[in-house]
Amino acid sequence: MNKQPYETFEDFDRIHEECGVFGVYDFDRHDVAPTIYYGLLALQHRGQESCGIAVSDTEGPKGKVLVHKGMGLTNEVFTPEHLERLSPGDIGVGHVRYSTAGASTRENAQPLVLNYIKGTLALAHNGNLVNAPELRRELEYDGAIFQTTIDTEVIAYHIARARVKSKTVEEAVGRAMRKLVGAYSLVIMSPRKLIGARDPFGFKPLCIGKRDNAYILSSESCALDTVGAEFVRDVRPGEIVSITRDGIKSDTSLCLPPEKEARCIFEYIYFARPDTRIDGVSVYHARLAAGRFLAKDHPVEADLVVGVPESGNAAAQGYAQESGIPYGTAFVKNSYVGRTFIKPKQKSRESSVQVKLNVLKESVAGKRIIMVDDSIVRGTTCGRIVNMLREAGAKEVHVRISAPPFLHPCYFGTDIPSEDQLIAHGRTVEEIRQEIGADSLGYLGLDRLPQMAEGLPICTACFSGEYPIEPPREDIRGEYQK
Amino acid sequence: MNKQPYETFEDFDRIHEECGVFGVYDFDRHDVAPTIYYGLLALQHRGQESCGIAVSDTEGPKGKVLVHKGMGLTNEVFTPEHLERLSPGDIGVGHVRYSTAGASTRENAQPLVLNYIKGTLALAHNGNLVNAPELRRELEYDGAIFQTTIDTEVIAYHIARARVKSKTVEEAVGRAMRKLVGAYSLVIMSPRKLIGARDPFGFKPLCIGKRDNAYILSSESCALDTVGAEFVRDVRPGEIVSITRDGIKSDTSLCLPPEKEARCIFEYIYFARPDTRIDGVSVYHARLAAGRFLAKDHPVEADLVVGVPESGNAAAQGYAQESGIPYGTAFVKNSYVGRTFIKPKQKSRESSVQVKLNVLKESVAGKRIIMVDDSIVRGTTCGRIVNMLREAGAKEVHVRISAPPFLHPCYFGTDIPSEDQLIAHGRTVEEIRQEIGADSLGYLGLDRLPQMAEGLPICTACFSGEYPIEPPREDIRGEYQK
Amino acid sequence: MNKQPYETFEDFDRIHEECGVFGVYDFDRHDVAPTIYYGLLALQHRGQESCGIAVSDTEGPKGKVLVHKGMGLTNEVFTPEHLERLSPGDIGVGHVRYSTAGASTRENAQPLVLNYIKGTLALAHNGNLVNAPELRRELEYDGAIFQTTIDTEVIAYHIARARVKSKTVEEAVGRAMRKLVGAYSLVIMSPRKLIGARDPFGFKPLCIGKRDNAYILSSESCALDTVGAEFVRDVRPGEIVSITRDGIKSDTSLCLPPEKEARCIFEYIYFARPDTRIDGVSVYHARLAAGRFLAKDHPVEADLVVGVPESGNAAAQGYAQESGIPYGTAFVKNSYVGRTFIKPKQKSRESSVQVKLNVLKESVAGKRIIMVDDSIVRGTTCGRIVNMLREAGAKEVHVRISAPPFLHPCYFGTDIPSEDQLIAHGRTVEEIRQEIGADSLGYLGLDRLPQMAEGLPICTACFSGEYPIEPPREDIRGEYQK
Amino acid sequence: MNKQPYETFEDFDRIHEECGVFGVYDFDRHDVAPTIYYGLLALQHRGQESCGIAVSDTEGPKGKVLVHKGMGLTNEVFTPEHLERLSPGDIGVGHVRYSTAGASTRENAQPLVLNYIKGTLALAHNGNLVNAPELRRELEYDGAIFQTTIDTEVIAYHIARARVKSKTVEEAVGRAMRKLVGAYSLVIMSPRKLIGARDPFGFKPLCIGKRDNAYILSSESCALDTVGAEFVRDVRPGEIVSITRDGIKSDTSLCLPPEKEARCIFEYIYFARPDTRIDGVSVYHARLAAGRFLAKDHPVEADLVVGVPESGNAAAQGYAQESGIPYGTAFVKNSYVGRTFIKPKQKSRESSVQVKLNVLKESVAGKRIIMVDDSIVRGTTCGRIVNMLREAGAKEVHVRISAPPFLHPCYFGTDIPSEDQLIAHGRTVEEIRQEIGADSLGYLGLDRLPQMAEGLPICTACFSGEYPIEPPREDIRGEYQK
Repeated sequence: MNKQPYETFEDFDRIHEECGVFGVYDFDRHDVAPTIYYGLLALQHRGQESCGIAVSDTEGPKGKVLVHKGMGLTNEVFTPEHLERLSPGDIGVGHVRYSTAGASTRENAQPLVLNYIKGTLALAHNGNLVNAPELRRELEYDGAIFQTTIDTEVIAYHIARARVKSKTVEEAVGRAMRKLVGAYSLVIMSPRKLIGARDPFGFKPLCIGKRDNAYILSSESCALDTVGAEFVRDVRPGEIVSITRDGIKSDTSLCLPPEKEARCIFEYIYFARPDTRIDGVSVYHARLAAGRFLAKDHPVEADLVVGVPESGNAAAQGYAQESGIPYGTAFVKNSYVGRTFIKPKQKSRESSVQVKLNVLKESVAGKRIIMVDDSIVRGTTCGRIVNMLREAGAKEVHVRISAPPFLHPCYFGTDIPSEDQLIAHGRTVEEIRQEIGADSLGYLGLDRLPQMAEGLPICTACFSGEYPIEPPREDIRGEYQK
Repeated sequence: MNKQPYETFEDFDRIHEECGVFGVYDFDRHDVAPTIYYGLLALQHRGQESCGIAVSDTEGPKGKVLVHKGMGLTNEVFTPEHLERLSPGDIGVGHVRYSTAGASTRENAQPLVLNYIKGTLALAHNGNLVNAPELRRELEYDGAIFQTTIDTEVIAYHIARARVKSKTVEEAVGRAMRKLVGAYSLVIMSPRKLIGARDPFGFKPLCIGKRDNAYILSSESCALDTVGAEFVRDVRPGEIVSITRDGIKSDTSLCLPPEKEARCIFEYIYFARPDTRIDGVSVYHARLAAGRFLAKDHPVEADLVVGVPESGNAAAQGYAQESGIPYGTAFVKNSYVGRTFIKPKQKSRESSVQVKLNVLKESVAGKRIIMVDDSIVRGTTCGRIVNMLREAGAKEVHVRISAPPFLHPCYFGTDIPSEDQLIAHGRTVEEIRQEIGADSLGYLGLDRLPQMAEGLPICTACFSGEYPIEPPREDIRGEYQK
Repeated sequence: MNKQPYETFEDFDRIHEECGVFGVYDFDRHDVAPTIYYGLLALQHRGQESCGIAVSDTEGPKGKVLVHKGMGLTNEVFTPEHLERLSPGDIGVGHVRYSTAGASTRENAQPLVLNYIKGTLALAHNGNLVNAPELRRELEYDGAIFQTTIDTEVIAYHIARARVKSKTVEEAVGRAMRKLVGAYSLVIMSPRKLIGARDPFGFKPLCIGKRDNAYILSSESCALDTVGAEFVRDVRPGEIVSITRDGIKSDTSLCLPPEKEARCIFEYIYFARPDTRIDGVSVYHARLAAGRFLAKDHPVEADLVVGVPESGNAAAQGYAQESGIPYGTAFVKNSYVGRTFIKPKQKSRESSVQVKLNVLKESVAGKRIIMVDDSIVRGTTCGRIVNMLREAGAKEVHVRISAPPFLHPCYFGTDIPSEDQLIAHGRTVEEIRQEIGADSLGYLGLDRLPQMAEGLPICTACFSGEYPIEPPREDIRGEYQK
Repeated sequence: MNKQPYETFEDFDRIHEECGVFGVYDFDRHDVAPTIYYGLLALQHRGQESCGIAVSDTEGPKGKVLVHKGMGLTNEVFTPEHLERLSPGDIGVGHVRYSTAGASTRENAQPLVLNYIKGTLALAHNGNLVNAPELRRELEYDGAIFQTTIDTEVIAYHIARARVKSKTVEEAVGRAMRKLVGAYSLVIMSPRKLIGARDPFGFKPLCIGKRDNAYILSSESCALDTVGAEFVRDVRPGEIVSITRDGIKSDTSLCLPPEKEARCIFEYIYFARPDTRIDGVSVYHARLAAGRFLAKDHPVEADLVVGVPESGNAAAQGYAQESGIPYGTAFVKNSYVGRTFIKPKQKSRESSVQVKLNVLKESVAGKRIIMVDDSIVRGTTCGRIVNMLREAGAKEVHVRISAPPFLHPCYFGTDIPSEDQLIAHGRTVEEIRQEIGADSLGYLGLDRLPQMAEGLPICTACFSGEYPIEPPREDIRGEYQK
């Protein structure tokens, strides 16, 4: 009974999105901080490590920016006092962030707020630049200093430099975008303008909403619903939209020429909330469709189709609809266990899976179960869940995955572990099936992905290895981490 | 754009459970604090206001108790350091609590730890005594002082007084129980014993589990699953079980004579987690059954049955199974919004419902929806959700409630608002239907409740007004609150 | 360069006072919380471990007490929000506390707030009861429960029990006092009365002040100055004063019969602030006098008299005045280093003394120094300071102590270490001199103490072993500590 | 008794220093974080708003910097865990800071840590640049972005830009210094070097110490004593010293050509700790001398000379020594009241002066008092203290100020309020005397300042208006503050 050390435990067997962005300009001059706060709550699934809000008063002293950032969830970082201090502010941007983190990530929290030749800028960014290391090195050779390790700072530098020779901030953003290679959805606040921009590949989503006399930019449309705004349209790949007191406009002369569009298919599979639509395609529908394809391509006789909560539920419903096998609930998820909880450092009886999930024995005992999940990363979680179903009395467990196997790294903003940690790396499907202990295993076929996205051009690099942009020579993920 | 004050907002349109209890005695002398911590995480739905753990070393200095309590969720109150300091301790109790709260509720957090004639006791209690005010007054007339406003302190006094003339602590608990009238499930730690007790009506659940050489007492069986323990049996109404190094025993001479049992039906309807079994009846099954009864008693033609998450899902599945109408998902719940979030004090556009729930338009547009929930309290939340469905394009919204209308106060540990706040008070079902804007409304009939509990004797007082114990002359809820 | 563990370090080579008490009743019905807050700031030297304030509204609902307590200094525990929540409240008590502490001392923070037969009481207590263990045991045999390990709870029980058969709370306090043996200065708040009481020996100080229409009770008169109040008089040993809307009165029939008074001489030597007067004697004067006696009794040729800050300064000035040797400053104290700071667990170069004190080389180099301090406890600190003076170039260092050597434990509220840790235990003055490395060493003689207190009857037990009350058979200090 | 709002109150009637810097390079490869922590504790009087430590491992991965910064005192910002995480690190810099603050000063906390062409740099800076706005603007016109509002960032940019074309970081520092105009004492950590630099005027102090095989750079020599290091020498005005594994060196070819030296005289008067020596002159001696000059220039018959603690004490001792009038103690300072405490927003009885200081009535009653302080800023504090002395019975109060009257703004790092707030602005000494209610008032003459500094060239601009560098056209203080 010696004192044992405990540690805060985090479940790593998940693919992480890197960020969510949100911006508001309220022409009626209401404070926008609470709307951004609610927007970030709705985008929280896109980043749980840090968050921040920066606001400004478009009729106040030029360039005065109020900002609050911190490590943690939106609900942890913001108190009523913090929101009070973010006033007055009729224009603002917010950000939620996930990163592979190190000791001092407070510095990396966004929005990035800075002074430059024309006063102040606040930037919120989602995505990863493929050429960030080169751009950093170039800037450093020119005497630049970097206080963070985020790409956003590189983008900011390029906008600042372009601004010197540009007539407007939009023009500067356009010039800067011509140098940036990779994935970026940006929301930028200048003293009198709110600007949104999306890379020409359209990797990451960004949409426009409106509520009364306020315009909104958001990573996902679900956040528009949360704040009671109407969806206007998506920002187009390569487009720069500019919101000023005169309304919204998009100067096509600044926008980037069309490239081969390459939306991140994993937004549809897992990242985005099911109540979001991206570029006209409902995420919920895409997941239902994936389930239906699985039912067609990997049919099996069974008594019940269940989803691994929450992300497997929609595809499970699609499978059930297509197959006619009843859809049911097999798991109870503990909603009070967040991203982290405490574990003894030495071996303990309780696994993280068990603390988060419990099987509904009454629902599965004696049945043949089809268990649908969105992905298998390392395989440990999946294996445990299969095992829990068996211990609860399931007669058979058939696993169906609403995505192809992960095989390749992503350089555009998704934190896929290195190959040697991926269960699919160097294993056949049959070998994976044995590893996770399932009676059968079926993945969604690569060919189904375009159908899932209803024909939109997509990026499938993490599954197929076909990169829409040539991958960088070095691994850019985690570089420069202090 | 004047600075507006914000406040932390809490959604009150919910019925609250008052507490959850958990205790462990590990004969292999492992530290029990982490197991209790996981147990409390699994019982968190029973109380989110405060929590605490007290442990002791059965071979250490007699009466040395280590304790940590605090306001907030288990994951907020406990850090790795706190768990480390709860060592050594091979016996312990834990508690999660909800209360109607006041300024200084830190004092009311449990377990209650005290010194008395035989050293130390730590008590964790779930339930409400009907005769607490009389018992307090009696004790005060005898010179007692009270440092909290919880019934647990009254119980502790009676045990301490009985202990003076008893040979064992079990005997003292038995003597004390003869004075207590009302609902109580107790877990008590004395220096060398872990004791569980349940009132003779069996209002609140309490069960026994076992893992390796450790015995566990828990409000719900789901927490046994979480810590990897096996369910042994429920503590019987009126029973006192005593766990010592010699094993578990229950001296029937001390237990209370059988009374008319009266399990709280609302545990089955809403409080307990669906993966819990209480006195042999699966909560999930009870909810499925309630849904089936609703389908039989209040049929309607429709395209989709949906549950209001999370508590309405099981009954919705039962309704779907019975009616043959497909079950689907209509709502996305934001799992990052906890019990509280920030709201401007002045009117704001965002309602709490909207921040927590969003409708899956794709799922409901153009459809006739049957929406199943477990209860309607004030009606505001229900009305908003009906409205959200309509705005999302639902053609019809038929509301089915898997419980009868709330009409009466509860004196046994459930925080039902006063009558004037209950929508069902003084309104016909038709009037309620109009109030919430539904196309039809059906409640579960009172006669269905015994069937739902598979014949177990139940308390239905909040619906029927038939109290198994005469209600107190005065309202005991909230009395003595500082 | 392996990671080394650090710990929060506390300097233990000091004698600690146990508590300070403060109470206000404002007849003009202003909130008293801020006045109590300032009073506690002024009494902070009497206890730095925890503090608390409890207030009540004498015209509000009877027995509603608002309270805030916490571990730490007054300035750490109270924020503007806390003071705001302590309103309305025109009557209140506050407390600062030091204790030898254990894991869970939050429970022991005062004021102790409780419900009893006549509503609520809040108690703040300074001192130690000699018969607390017997009283606890008696109460426990009668079925009492204890939730703290402080004597205050024992006192509260006795007042509550006496109240049952008393007409007034004052009468109950008087009856209780007849059972209490030891040191206690009490401030008690009942719903409509503020009561002060002092044990018949007068061990600990307690005085009365007035500001406009508010009466104040305070451990020390310096706190009256801080809040702008006038000193009225000291509470007399054995007296009970009662402040009601009708003013202040003291019913001599309730007060205790006079005992041999025995004021704690260490209040004059070290505990009390120099700007305090206790029972008519100025603490500053007493210290000046001690310095003068030292100059007379232990003269030495030297160039400069210096005090060890802060407590040695007044006696050093007295020594300088009597001897004609110039008074100067030899040390700079770092006022930003509080009671605690961080130290590597393994040996480190920096001593706690060095971090807190630095020698003013310019002041002492080449000089013969008389260094005056109030006491030597373990001797380590004193030895280090002597050494620092030598390293700074002092030619001679003559140590003068404005108290006799510590030799005996105190049972009345002073935390003197056990005998084996006292440098004076079993050592002659010459041996102590060698131990601390001084050129000469002189202690104040026992016979000087009565003169220092200007003839007031005093307790000198820690120096002389002559206890005014028979010491308890067992060591009561730290007992019952969890 | 309505709830009244409270606020945290800060005493502004003080002149504030802006910063303190500290750096260590330990050739024996011990962790330097604890030494820097103790150094910052000793320099805390130079800045209480924020602090930080950055360390690096000279044999670890190049450019890996561990950093912790925060708002508050060193003891508040650093816990044992923080120090543990600052390991391994055998080289490091620390900083304490005061600023006129705004909403988001966390961003401005130092050391400033950055990536640049040669890896990483960490900078700690004390002083103010006169040409910072021009330098910023120049850089911005060249596309630079600024994430803070501190001059340090401007300095960092210039070093980074110079580094591109320099062979060593020392050379880059030298090139950068040729552009900086104003006051700066810098400690810079590069991956393998610790560099110290001081502007050619020598406005702010910086000295070198040594302990075993570790070199130390510190704003004040008192911090060397605290960490047990020996004073080696002061860094010379315009000098750049470089500490590498090969020892310490200073390449005169890089250093700046000598300018008219202009040490800040206010370091001697008030800022520096009395146990510090700056450029060979003891601060304590300088203050004693100022007191002696006051006694010669403004003699008066009196009974007692007292200092306003702490800063007036040394000069009071000098006055006493010169005049032969006894030196005594008139005030007790509450050492538990920090920089801030809580005050009701509406008028309250307690002044900040009263809460911090109390008069020792016994010491002053009936006496003619000479009260010595280091400065009068707005005059309110001084007036209150004079009044407190009178209320305590002083017969006469003669105020002597150990500095000339404040009349002009400082652009070199001292936060002197604007002219209209300075009591001396537009008032004769006689008018000031009346304002503060003294019987007589004497300031130190301007001509005494050079003598006080023992002939060192000094800057007296705030008193004389004679600026060693032409003041900037615009007020640079507080500019760019968000």
